[in-house]
Amino acid sequence: MKIVQVTDEVSLKRDLDAGTSEQREAVEKIIQDVREKGDAALLSYTEKFDGATLDSLLVEKAEVNAAYEQIDPGVLNAIRAAIVNIHDFHQRQVQQSWMTTKEDGTILGQKVTPLDSVGLYVPGGKAAYPSSIMMNVIPAQVAGVKQITIVSPPQKDGSIPASVLVTANELGITTIYKVGGAQAVAALAYGTETIQAVDKITGPGNIYVALAKRAVFGRVDIDMIAGPSEIVVLADENANARYIAADLLSQAEHDERASAVLVTPSQDLADEVKAEVIRQLETLPKREIAQASIQDYGAIYVTKDLEEAVNVTNELAPEHLEILTEDAMSLVGRIRHAGAIFVGPYSSEPVGDYFAGPNHVLPTNGTARFSSPLSVDDFVKKSSVISYSKQAMKQNGASISALARLEGLEAHARAIDIRLEDE
Amino acid sequence: MKIVQVTDEVSLKRDLDAGTSEQREAVEKIIQDVREKGDAALLSYTEKFDGATLDSLLVEKAEVNAAYEQIDPGVLNAIRAAIVNIHDFHQRQVQQSWMTTKEDGTILGQKVTPLDSVGLYVPGGKAAYPSSIMMNVIPAQVAGVKQITIVSPPQKDGSIPASVLVTANELGITTIYKVGGAQAVAALAYGTETIQAVDKITGPGNIYVALAKRAVFGRVDIDMIAGPSEIVVLADENANARYIAADLLSQAEHDERASAVLVTPSQDLADEVKAEVIRQLETLPKREIAQASIQDYGAIYVTKDLEEAVNVTNELAPEHLEILTEDAMSLVGRIRHAGAIFVGPYSSEPVGDYFAGPNHVLPTNGTARFSSPLSVDDFVKKSSVISYSKQAMKQNGASISALARLEGLEAHARAIDIRLEDE
Repeated sequence: MKIVQVTDEVSLKRDLDAGTSEQREAVEKIIQDVREKGDAALLSYTEKFDGATLDSLLVEKAEVNAAYEQIDPGVLNAIRAAIVNIHDFHQRQVQQSWMTTKEDGTILGQKVTPLDSVGLYVPGGKAAYPSSIMMNVIPAQVAGVKQITIVSPPQKDGSIPASVLVTANELGITTIYKVGGAQAVAALAYGTETIQAVDKITGPGNIYVALAKRAVFGRVDIDMIAGPSEIVVLADENANARYIAADLLSQAEHDERASAVLVTPSQDLADEVKAEVIRQLETLPKREIAQASIQDYGAIYVTKDLEEAVNVTNELAPEHLEILTEDAMSLVGRIRHAGAIFVGPYSSEPVGDYFAGPNHVLPTNGTARFSSPLSVDDFVKKSSVISYSKQAMKQNGASISALARLEGLEAHARAIDIRLEDE
Repeated sequence: MKIVQVTDEVSLKRDLDAGTSEQREAVEKIIQDVREKGDAALLSYTEKFDGATLDSLLVEKAEVNAAYEQIDPGVLNAIRAAIVNIHDFHQRQVQQSWMTTKEDGTILGQKVTPLDSVGLYVPGGKAAYPSSIMMNVIPAQVAGVKQITIVSPPQKDGSIPASVLVTANELGITTIYKVGGAQAVAALAYGTETIQAVDKITGPGNIYVALAKRAVFGRVDIDMIAGPSEIVVLADENANARYIAADLLSQAEHDERASAVLVTPSQDLADEVKAEVIRQLETLPKREIAQASIQDYGAIYVTKDLEEAVNVTNELAPEHLEILTEDAMSLVGRIRHAGAIFVGPYSSEPVGDYFAGPNHVLPTNGTARFSSPLSVDDFVKKSSVISYSKQAMKQNGASISALARLEGLEAHARAIDIRLEDE
């Protein structure tokens, strides 16, 4: 892990994987096939890519019941507690419709309406994270989305991991289809005999899923295309180096391209954290991944003071930011760009990944400059409401048609004039 | 204008113009040039595409002062009144940061932060709409964005239309650059010697502008890529056919591909509106455009009852919806998808384009199913805040590491365990 005296520009930006032209063509073909052949295409691709021969795409109630047998009761309780916390946090994001009235009788407003339907992509195999299901489904449910569909690629024996089925069931989601990849995204965007088309597709996936989401975007909405995960720890000399090293490694184990960075004015802390990272790496099951990430995308930036450390942090605009300084909370107001801010020594990043309540789907790759965590807002849309009164029209009509004519839009002006003439 | 008995699926969707491969390559080259050569590239493209040879990109104060001489005082007053109304409406969209505390000492919250900087593209020539400036700048200002830059292609003599300069000045915007096309978008995304890079680019433009916005998306944020404008009028037998025809034509004059649709259970109204459209078309300055739009994308759908008319309207998910029925307000709750809803006979769509207060940048092409009008929300981003307490860690740490291990993420679990061990 390199220790760097900050001098010039710093950045977490990595090139997004745009796929090869072969991959993009393969995805286009799959989408076309699903549009033309529907379920038959889904079953055939599932056989080809997942090695599973299915009679039916839909997960049966009996499979869900069987899944409960495989889940440790302690884990089940943890899932239930997490759901309560996540639900509670997102409930606070709910925006109400509002209306305002004017003395001339005009009514203006903003109507908030949940999306009709959402599809959630859940990756297969080792990346089938129950926490992703909670983090995507709960804001949609809180928003009031009525139809929520989960798609996930089956294992070779045609099954879906027990943790996925149990988590979905705990959330009350019963519509789960055994299909993954670009074919699942195509099915959610266009619909098939079995799978109903939805208005928005969210959830992580491999490059084929990402390319398929890009391809159907516009027809349906999608969530952000996430880059590799990132953590920045902003710490002073009082921070615990062991905690920091552990937290940096918790990001690094995700992906060789994940980025774990410490920013500190303390050279001593920098040295300690470096040593701790090396020590803790030794016994990690995902040592190789974490080591590659630390080597290629990890860094310790030593700054001349805390002020500069805050500036560097803002330049990095990280997905996850931990602040481990004296009076950490007082720095929150100076953080302009971060997906989630973890304050103080007990706010280890995994607390937010699983349990505290805020969403773990966060802007990566420097996009925290302009993007927000996944939220209830992502599952509603707004409509403006304008009820103009006769009096308001009489009073303001001439101004409105003057503005229309300024822009050379005579038919706009006449739509106003025709009403004024009637008075 | 065709009158159709509704039978099957209806849709406003048109293919979005994705540009030709020549256009996409031209845009890529322009972006590359601006990145490499900065201002020199901007000045050279401005000479090439706009026919203007400039000494300086920045609009001078003297030019702004001179612009006021050219503006009719009545129009200036209308601009000022519109600004007040638009500001007032958007002020109501402001979301506050919030925090919530738990008895165990945990603090959770959502911090709302304005974007640092925004660039607004204003098209040149006849499409230089002062109303677009108001509708893009005001929500950004209300959000608290400090740096707002306007770019707009100059006319051959190197000038920017007076209406643009005056409107910008009335809004307090002094950073206006004489540059348009893909080169302006590239400058806003990457910065040049003169033009500072921004975090988000908004505003309409031609195909080159749209392609450039797509190309820089990810590095910076962009607003939606708007399709041709649309209006749906939902009306019953009590509605005024002259008003409806005038409002349909006010959309149709925008663009040959604009879409103007009446949905009504009344065959009589359908016949009357058709006759009125033909009559009013006669004397329109933009008759040819409006006629083409009405012919190719206009329609009157006659439904069996009002219920079906509401359903058809929701299927169309229009950008603009006018409701001209008895007790129109009572139908608003049944509209699930519309960018803006204009209620009653005096809420002609141009009222919203210019003056009432709500934003006129609205989702087109059926995307009102999942998208919202441009708003203050588009110029802020949110960060989650998590301050976990020692007590909360002791109480919940085991659940958190159990969930991490369920997902096979051992380093995540250890980041929790290392804190539990210290207790």
